[in-house]
Amino acid sequence: MLRLYFGANTCSLASHIALEDAGADYTTVRIDMRANEQRQPDYLAINPKGRVPALATDRGVLTETPAMLAFIAQSFPQAGLAPLDDPFAFAAVQAFNSYLCSTVHVAHAHRARGSRWADDEAAIAAMQRFVPRSVGACFDLIEAQMLKGPWVMGDAYTICDPYLFTVSQWLEIDGVDLAAVPRVVDHRRRMSERAAVRKVIAATLG
Amino acid sequence: MLRLYFGANTCSLASHIALEDAGADYTTVRIDMRANEQRQPDYLAINPKGRVPALATDRGVLTETPAMLAFIAQSFPQAGLAPLDDPFAFAAVQAFNSYLCSTVHVAHAHRARGSRWADDEAAIAAMQRFVPRSVGACFDLIEAQMLKGPWVMGDAYTICDPYLFTVSQWLEIDGVDLAAVPRVVDHRRRMSERAAVRKVIAATLG
Repeated sequence: MLRLYFGANTCSLASHIALEDAGADYTTVRIDMRANEQRQPDYLAINPKGRVPALATDRGVLTETPAMLAFIAQSFPQAGLAPLDDPFAFAAVQAFNSYLCSTVHVAHAHRARGSRWADDEAAIAAMQRFVPRSVGACFDLIEAQMLKGPWVMGDAYTICDPYLFTVSQWLEIDGVDLAAVPRVVDHRRRMSERAAVRKVIAATLG
Repeated sequence: MLRLYFGANTCSLASHIALEDAGADYTTVRIDMRANEQRQPDYLAINPKGRVPALATDRGVLTETPAMLAFIAQSFPQAGLAPLDDPFAFAAVQAFNSYLCSTVHVAHAHRARGSRWADDEAAIAAMQRFVPRSVGACFDLIEAQMLKGPWVMGDAYTICDPYLFTVSQWLEIDGVDLAAVPRVVDHRRRMSERAAVRKVIAATLG
Protein backbone atom coordinates (compact mmCIF):
# COMPACT_ATOMS: atom_id res chain seq x y z
CA MET A 1 0.00 0.00 0.00
CA LEU A 2 1.30 3.43 -0.96
CA ARG A 3 0.82 6.40 1.38
CA LEU A 4 1.07 9.94 0.02
CA TYR A 5 1.90 12.79 2.38
CA PHE A 6 0.43 15.90 0.81
CA GLY A 7 -0.13 19.57 1.50
CA ALA A 8 -2.98 21.68 0.17
CA ASN A 9 -1.97 23.96 -2.73
CA THR A 10 1.44 22.36 -3.08
CA CYS A 11 3.18 20.37 -5.79
CA SER A 12 2.03 17.16 -4.08
CA LEU A 13 -1.08 17.56 -6.24
CA ALA A 14 0.84 16.21 -9.26
CA SER A 15 1.68 12.88 -7.64
CA HIS A 16 -1.79 12.68 -6.14
CA ILE A 17 -3.41 12.94 -9.57
CA ALA A 18 -0.91 10.50 -11.06
CA LEU A 19 -1.74 7.91 -8.38
CA GLU A 20 -5.40 8.29 -9.28
CA ASP A 21 -4.61 8.11 -13.02
CA ALA A 22 -2.63 4.93 -12.36
CA GLY A 23 -5.46 3.24 -10.52
CA ALA A 24 -3.12 2.77 -7.57
CA ASP A 25 -4.21 1.48 -4.20
CA TYR A 26 -3.11 4.35 -1.93
CA THR A 27 -3.97 6.35 1.14
CA THR A 28 -3.18 9.95 1.95
CA VAL A 29 -1.99 11.89 4.97
CA ARG A 30 -2.63 15.64 5.03
CA ILE A 31 0.26 17.77 6.29
CA ASP A 32 -0.91 21.11 7.65
CA MET A 33 1.48 23.56 6.01
CA ARG A 34 -0.06 26.58 7.79
CA ALA A 35 0.81 24.94 11.11
CA ASN A 36 4.30 24.20 9.72
CA GLU A 37 3.68 20.51 10.34
CA GLN A 38 6.21 19.66 7.64
CA ARG A 39 8.98 20.93 9.95
CA GLN A 40 7.88 18.98 13.03
CA PRO A 41 9.76 15.89 14.27
CA ASP A 42 7.05 13.40 13.27
CA TYR A 43 7.19 14.43 9.66
CA LEU A 44 10.96 15.03 9.58
CA ALA A 45 11.32 11.36 10.51
CA ILE A 46 9.54 10.59 7.24
CA ASN A 47 11.16 13.25 5.08
CA PRO A 48 14.21 14.95 6.62
CA LYS A 49 13.95 17.70 4.00
CA GLY A 50 10.80 19.01 5.70
CA ARG A 51 8.90 19.32 2.46
CA VAL A 52 5.92 17.70 0.79
CA PRO A 53 5.27 15.46 -1.03
CA ALA A 54 6.60 12.16 0.28
CA LEU A 55 5.46 8.72 -0.78
CA ALA A 56 5.80 5.88 1.71
CA THR A 57 6.18 2.49 0.06
CA ASP A 58 6.84 -1.00 1.37
CA ARG A 59 10.52 -0.43 0.66
CA GLY A 60 10.93 3.06 2.03
CA VAL A 61 10.04 6.68 1.44
CA LEU A 62 10.40 8.46 -1.88
CA THR A 63 10.54 12.23 -2.34
CA GLU A 64 10.91 14.74 -5.19
CA THR A 65 8.02 15.07 -7.60
CA PRO A 66 9.82 14.08 -10.84
CA ALA A 67 11.15 10.91 -9.21
CA MET A 68 7.77 10.05 -7.70
CA LEU A 69 5.96 10.60 -11.00
CA ALA A 70 8.37 8.32 -12.87
CA PHE A 71 8.02 5.75 -10.08
CA ILE A 72 4.23 5.79 -10.42
CA ALA A 73 4.47 5.42 -14.20
CA GLN A 74 6.92 2.53 -13.91
CA SER A 75 5.01 0.81 -11.10
CA PHE A 76 1.71 0.88 -13.00
CA PRO A 77 2.79 0.30 -16.60
CA GLN A 78 -0.70 -0.73 -17.67
CA ALA A 79 -1.82 2.88 -17.08
CA GLY A 80 0.44 4.07 -19.90
CA LEU A 81 1.54 7.23 -18.11
CA ALA A 82 5.00 7.42 -19.73
CA PRO A 83 6.81 5.92 -22.76
CA LEU A 84 8.65 3.41 -20.61
CA ASP A 85 10.26 1.41 -23.42
CA ASP A 86 11.72 4.38 -25.29
CA PRO A 87 14.66 6.04 -23.49
CA PHE A 88 14.56 9.16 -25.67
CA ALA A 89 10.83 9.72 -25.27
CA PHE A 90 11.07 8.95 -21.55
CA ALA A 91 13.91 11.48 -21.24
CA ALA A 92 11.77 14.10 -22.97
CA VAL A 93 9.07 13.49 -20.35
CA GLN A 94 11.62 13.74 -17.60
CA ALA A 95 13.19 16.89 -19.04
CA PHE A 96 9.82 18.60 -18.99
CA ASN A 97 9.19 17.57 -15.40
CA SER A 98 12.70 18.55 -14.35
CA TYR A 99 12.13 22.02 -15.83
CA LEU A 100 8.92 22.40 -13.82
CA CYS A 101 10.72 21.29 -10.66
CA SER A 102 14.00 23.17 -10.91
CA THR A 103 13.00 26.31 -12.80
CA VAL A 104 9.24 26.98 -12.74
CA HIS A 105 8.51 25.84 -9.18
CA VAL A 106 11.69 27.56 -7.97
CA ALA A 107 10.67 30.85 -9.60
CA HIS A 108 7.24 30.51 -7.99
CA ALA A 109 8.76 29.75 -4.59
CA HIS A 110 10.39 33.19 -4.51
CA ARG A 111 6.94 34.64 -3.88
CA ALA A 112 6.34 33.02 -0.48
CA ARG A 113 9.58 31.20 0.37
CA GLY A 114 12.19 33.86 -0.20
CA SER A 115 13.66 33.13 3.22
CA ARG A 116 15.23 30.04 1.68
CA TRP A 117 17.65 32.31 -0.20
CA ALA A 118 18.06 35.48 1.87
CA ASP A 119 17.38 36.73 5.40
CA ASP A 120 16.98 40.38 4.49
CA GLU A 121 13.37 41.62 4.45
CA ALA A 122 13.96 44.07 1.61
CA ALA A 123 15.59 41.35 -0.47
CA ILE A 124 12.69 38.99 0.15
CA ALA A 125 10.29 41.72 -0.94
CA ALA A 126 12.37 42.32 -4.07
CA MET A 127 12.13 38.61 -4.90
CA GLN A 128 8.36 38.72 -4.51
CA ARG A 129 8.07 41.65 -6.89
CA PHE A 130 10.04 39.78 -9.54
CA VAL A 131 7.88 36.64 -9.58
CA PRO A 132 5.49 37.76 -12.34
CA ARG A 133 8.48 38.27 -14.63
CA SER A 134 10.35 35.05 -13.80
CA VAL A 135 7.33 32.76 -13.70
CA GLY A 136 5.87 34.57 -16.70
CA ALA A 137 9.03 33.92 -18.73
CA CYS A 138 8.83 30.22 -17.84
CA PHE A 139 5.23 29.98 -18.99
CA ASP A 140 6.00 31.92 -22.17
CA LEU A 141 8.49 29.17 -23.03
CA ILE A 142 6.03 26.42 -22.12
CA GLU A 143 3.30 28.10 -24.17
CA ALA A 144 5.43 28.66 -27.26
CA GLN A 145 7.77 25.69 -27.33
CA MET A 146 7.18 22.96 -24.78
CA LEU A 147 3.43 22.18 -24.63
CA LYS A 148 2.88 20.17 -27.81
CA GLY A 149 -0.89 19.80 -27.43
CA PRO A 150 -3.41 18.57 -26.76
CA TRP A 151 -1.31 17.08 -23.96
CA VAL A 152 2.19 18.16 -22.99
CA MET A 153 3.86 15.43 -25.00
CA GLY A 154 1.34 15.49 -27.84
CA ASP A 155 -1.41 12.97 -28.33
CA ALA A 156 -0.47 10.85 -25.33
CA TYR A 157 -1.40 11.88 -21.80
CA THR A 158 1.65 11.41 -19.55
CA ILE A 159 2.96 12.25 -16.08
CA CYS A 160 3.84 15.70 -17.48
CA ASP A 161 0.17 16.65 -17.58
CA PRO A 162 -0.73 16.50 -13.89
CA TYR A 163 2.53 18.29 -13.10
CA LEU A 164 1.86 21.15 -15.54
CA PHE A 165 -1.69 21.33 -14.21
CA THR A 166 -0.26 21.65 -10.70
CA VAL A 167 2.12 24.51 -11.38
CA SER A 168 -0.47 26.26 -13.54
CA GLN A 169 -2.70 26.47 -10.45
CA TRP A 170 -0.35 29.23 -9.36
CA LEU A 171 -0.59 31.45 -12.46
CA GLU A 172 -2.96 33.97 -10.90
CA ILE A 173 -1.24 34.22 -7.53
CA ASP A 174 2.10 34.61 -9.33
CA GLY A 175 0.70 37.51 -11.35
CA VAL A 176 1.08 35.93 -14.78
CA ASP A 177 -1.12 37.41 -17.52
CA LEU A 178 -3.44 34.56 -18.53
CA ALA A 179 -4.04 36.16 -21.91
CA ALA A 180 -0.37 35.53 -22.75
CA VAL A 181 -0.64 31.76 -22.24
CA PRO A 182 -3.93 30.61 -23.79
CA ARG A 183 -2.71 27.09 -24.56
CA VAL A 184 -1.62 26.57 -20.95
CA VAL A 185 -4.97 27.88 -19.71
CA ASP A 186 -6.81 25.56 -22.10
CA HIS A 187 -4.72 22.62 -20.86
CA ARG A 188 -5.58 23.55 -17.28
CA ARG A 189 -9.28 23.67 -18.11
CA ARG A 190 -9.23 20.30 -19.85
CA MET A 191 -7.31 18.76 -16.97
CA SER A 192 -9.80 20.16 -14.44
CA GLU A 193 -12.62 18.32 -16.23
CA ARG A 194 -11.04 14.88 -15.86
CA ALA A 195 -12.74 12.67 -13.31
CA ALA A 196 -9.46 11.77 -11.59
CA VAL A 197 -8.56 15.41 -11.15
CA ARG A 198 -11.99 16.35 -9.82
CA LYS A 199 -11.77 13.53 -7.31
CA VAL A 200 -8.33 14.57 -6.09
CA ILE A 201 -9.22 18.26 -5.87
CA ALA A 202 -12.30 17.40 -3.82
CA ALA A 203 -10.24 15.19 -1.50
CA THR A 204 -7.52 17.77 -0.92
CA LEU A 205 -10.02 20.54 -0.22
CA GLY A 206 -11.74 18.22 2.27
CA MET B 1 26.35 9.94 -32.46
CA LEU B 2 25.63 11.99 -29.34
CA ARG B 3 26.84 15.60 -29.09
CA LEU B 4 27.14 17.26 -25.70
CA TYR B 5 27.01 21.04 -25.45
CA PHE B 6 28.93 21.92 -22.31
CA GLY B 7 30.22 24.91 -20.38
CA ALA B 8 33.31 25.00 -18.18
CA ASN B 9 32.52 24.85 -14.44
CA THR B 10 28.85 24.09 -15.02
CA CYS B 11 26.59 21.18 -14.25
CA SER B 12 27.24 19.81 -17.75
CA LEU B 13 30.21 18.07 -16.11
CA ALA B 14 27.85 15.43 -14.68
CA SER B 15 26.53 14.29 -18.04
CA HIS B 16 30.00 14.52 -19.54
CA ILE B 17 31.39 12.11 -16.96
CA ALA B 18 28.37 9.81 -17.33
CA LEU B 19 28.89 9.62 -21.11
CA GLU B 20 32.49 8.61 -20.46
CA ASP B 21 31.42 6.11 -17.77
CA ALA B 22 28.93 4.63 -20.25
CA GLY B 23 31.54 4.14 -22.94
CA ALA B 24 29.37 6.23 -25.25
CA ASP B 25 30.46 7.39 -28.68
CA TYR B 26 30.06 11.16 -28.34
CA THR B 27 31.49 14.50 -29.32
CA THR B 28 31.44 17.79 -27.42
CA VAL B 29 30.86 21.43 -28.24
CA ARG B 30 32.17 24.03 -25.80
CA ILE B 31 29.82 26.92 -25.08
CA ASP B 32 31.70 30.02 -23.91
CA MET B 33 29.69 31.10 -20.87
CA ARG B 34 31.87 34.17 -20.25
CA ALA B 35 30.97 35.43 -23.72
CA ASN B 36 27.32 34.60 -22.97
CA GLU B 37 27.28 32.25 -25.96
CA GLN B 38 24.43 30.28 -24.37
CA ARG B 39 22.13 33.27 -24.99
CA GLN B 40 23.07 33.75 -28.67
CA PRO B 41 20.75 32.73 -31.53
CA ASP B 42 22.88 29.79 -32.67
CA TYR B 43 22.66 28.09 -29.30
CA LEU B 44 19.08 29.17 -28.56
CA ALA B 45 18.11 27.24 -31.70
CA ILE B 46 19.48 24.15 -29.97
CA ASN B 47 18.23 24.90 -26.45
CA PRO B 48 15.66 27.71 -26.19
CA LYS B 49 16.26 27.86 -22.44
CA GLY B 50 19.70 29.35 -23.04
CA ARG B 51 21.39 27.03 -20.59
CA VAL B 52 23.88 24.19 -20.69
CA PRO B 53 23.97 21.25 -20.91
CA ALA B 54 22.16 20.02 -23.99
CA LEU B 55 22.57 16.64 -25.63
CA ALA B 56 21.88 16.35 -29.34
CA THR B 57 20.76 12.88 -30.39
CA ASP B 58 19.57 11.39 -33.67
CA ARG B 59 16.01 12.02 -32.49
CA GLY B 60 16.33 15.50 -31.09
CA VAL B 61 17.86 17.54 -28.29
CA LEU B 62 17.59 16.61 -24.63
CA THR B 63 18.10 19.03 -21.75
CA GLU B 64 17.99 18.98 -17.92
CA THR B 65 20.73 17.06 -16.14
CA PRO B 66 18.54 14.50 -14.30
CA ALA B 67 16.77 13.58 -17.54
CA MET B 68 20.03 13.37 -19.47
CA LEU B 69 21.66 11.20 -16.81
CA ALA B 70 18.75 8.75 -16.80
CA PHE B 71 18.82 8.73 -20.60
CA ILE B 72 22.51 7.84 -20.61
CA ALA B 73 21.95 5.07 -18.05
CA GLN B 74 19.02 3.63 -20.04
CA SER B 75 20.78 3.93 -23.40
CA PHE B 76 23.88 2.10 -22.21
CA PRO B 77 22.47 -0.54 -19.85
CA GLN B 78 25.63 -2.64 -20.02
CA ALA B 79 27.44 0.13 -18.10
CA GLY B 80 25.25 -0.49 -15.04
CA LEU B 81 24.87 3.18 -14.15
CA ALA B 82 21.40 2.84 -12.59
CA PRO B 83 19.12 0.08 -11.24
CA LEU B 84 17.01 0.05 -14.40
CA ASP B 85 14.89 -2.97 -13.54
CA ASP B 86 13.85 -1.82 -10.07
CA PRO B 87 11.39 1.12 -10.07
CA PHE B 88 11.91 1.86 -6.36
CA ALA B 89 15.70 1.85 -6.56
CA PHE B 90 15.59 3.84 -9.79
CA ALA B 91 13.30 6.38 -8.10
CA ALA B 92 15.76 6.70 -5.22
CA VAL B 93 18.49 7.52 -7.75
CA GLN B 94 16.22 10.03 -9.43
CA ALA B 95 15.16 11.60 -6.13
CA PHE B 96 18.80 12.24 -5.25
CA ASN B 97 19.48 13.80 -8.64
CA SER B 98 16.30 15.86 -8.48
CA TYR B 99 17.39 17.24 -5.11
CA LEU B 100 20.75 18.27 -6.56
CA CYS B 101 19.01 19.95 -9.50
CA SER B 102 16.12 21.71 -7.80
CA THR B 103 17.56 22.50 -4.36
CA VAL B 104 21.37 22.33 -4.24
CA HIS B 105 22.12 23.77 -7.67
CA VAL B 106 19.41 26.40 -7.17
CA ALA B 107 20.91 27.47 -3.83
CA HIS B 108 24.33 27.69 -5.50
CA ALA B 109 22.93 29.73 -8.40
CA HIS B 110 21.99 32.53 -6.01
CA ARG B 111 25.70 33.36 -5.77
CA ALA B 112 26.24 34.37 -9.39
CA ARG B 113 22.81 34.25 -11.02
CA GLY B 114 20.68 36.24 -8.59
CA SER B 115 19.34 38.31 -11.49
CA ARG B 116 17.13 35.34 -12.32
CA TRP B 117 15.04 36.14 -9.24
CA ALA B 118 15.37 39.91 -8.59
CA ASP B 119 16.53 43.03 -10.38
CA ASP B 120 17.52 44.96 -7.28
CA GLU B 121 21.29 45.15 -6.68
CA ALA B 122 20.96 45.07 -2.90
CA ALA B 123 18.70 42.02 -3.09
CA ILE B 124 21.15 40.24 -5.36
CA ALA B 125 23.93 41.01 -2.88
CA ALA B 126 21.76 39.69 -0.03
CA MET B 127 21.24 36.45 -1.94
CA GLN B 128 25.00 36.11 -2.42
CA ARG B 129 25.66 36.54 1.28
CA PHE B 130 23.19 33.79 2.11
CA VAL B 131 24.72 31.11 -0.14
CA PRO B 132 27.08 29.61 2.46
CA ARG B 133 24.06 28.97 4.70
CA SER B 134 21.70 27.58 2.06
CA VAL B 135 24.23 25.46 0.21
CA GLY B 136 25.79 24.48 3.55
CA ALA B 137 22.42 23.21 4.83
CA CYS B 138 22.00 21.13 1.66
CA PHE B 139 25.40 19.53 2.08
CA ASP B 140 24.77 18.91 5.78
CA LEU B 141 21.77 16.81 4.75
CA ILE B 142 23.72 15.01 2.03
CA GLU B 143 26.56 14.32 4.47
CA ALA B 144 24.35 13.04 7.28
CA GLN B 145 21.50 11.28 5.51
CA MET B 146 21.77 10.96 1.75
CA LEU B 147 25.30 9.82 0.83
CA LYS B 148 25.26 6.13 1.78
CA GLY B 149 28.89 5.43 0.98
CA PRO B 150 31.19 4.55 -0.51
CA TRP B 151 29.06 5.76 -3.44
CA VAL B 152 25.90 7.82 -3.17
CA MET B 153 23.60 4.82 -3.39
CA GLY B 154 25.90 2.49 -1.45
CA ASP B 155 28.10 -0.15 -3.01
CA ALA B 156 27.00 0.51 -6.57
CA TYR B 157 28.36 3.46 -8.54
CA THR B 158 25.44 5.21 -10.29
CA ILE B 159 24.56 8.39 -12.18
CA CYS B 160 24.22 10.07 -8.77
CA ASP B 161 27.99 10.02 -8.32
CA PRO B 162 29.11 12.22 -11.21
CA TYR B 163 26.32 14.65 -10.32
CA LEU B 164 27.31 14.91 -6.65
CA PHE B 165 30.93 15.29 -7.77
CA THR B 166 29.85 18.15 -10.04
CA VAL B 167 27.99 20.17 -7.43
CA SER B 168 30.69 19.48 -4.84
CA GLN B 169 33.15 21.31 -7.14
CA TRP B 170 31.42 24.45 -5.91
CA LEU B 171 31.84 23.90 -2.15
CA GLU B 172 34.75 26.31 -1.77
CA ILE B 173 33.36 29.09 -3.94
CA ASP B 174 30.04 28.76 -2.11
CA GLY B 175 31.79 29.19 1.24
CA VAL B 176 30.88 25.83 2.70
CA ASP B 177 33.11 24.63 5.54
CA LEU B 178 34.78 21.49 4.18
CA ALA B 179 35.40 20.24 7.72
CA ALA B 180 31.64 19.90 8.18
CA VAL B 181 31.25 17.52 5.25
CA PRO B 182 34.15 15.04 5.36
CA ARG B 183 32.26 12.23 3.64
CA VAL B 184 31.34 14.48 0.72
CA VAL B 185 34.96 15.64 0.46
CA ASP B 186 36.15 12.04 0.52
CA HIS B 187 33.65 11.15 -2.22
CA ARG B 188 34.92 14.07 -4.29
CA ARG B 189 38.53 12.92 -3.89
CA ARG B 190 37.72 9.34 -4.88
CA MET B 191 35.76 10.55 -7.88
CA SER B 192 38.63 12.78 -8.98
CA GLU B 193 40.93 9.75 -9.11
CA ARG B 194 38.77 7.84 -11.59
CA ALA B 195 40.22 7.65 -15.09
CA ALA B 196 36.97 8.77 -16.72
CA VAL B 197 36.80 11.85 -14.50
CA ARG B 198 40.42 12.78 -15.10
CA LYS B 199 39.87 12.48 -18.85
CA VAL B 200 36.78 14.69 -18.78
CA ILE B 201 38.34 17.32 -16.54
CA ALA B 202 41.36 17.52 -18.84
CA ALA B 203 39.09 17.87 -21.87
CA THR B 204 36.95 20.62 -20.36
CA LEU B 205 39.97 22.62 -19.20
CA GLY B 206 41.38 22.27 -22.74
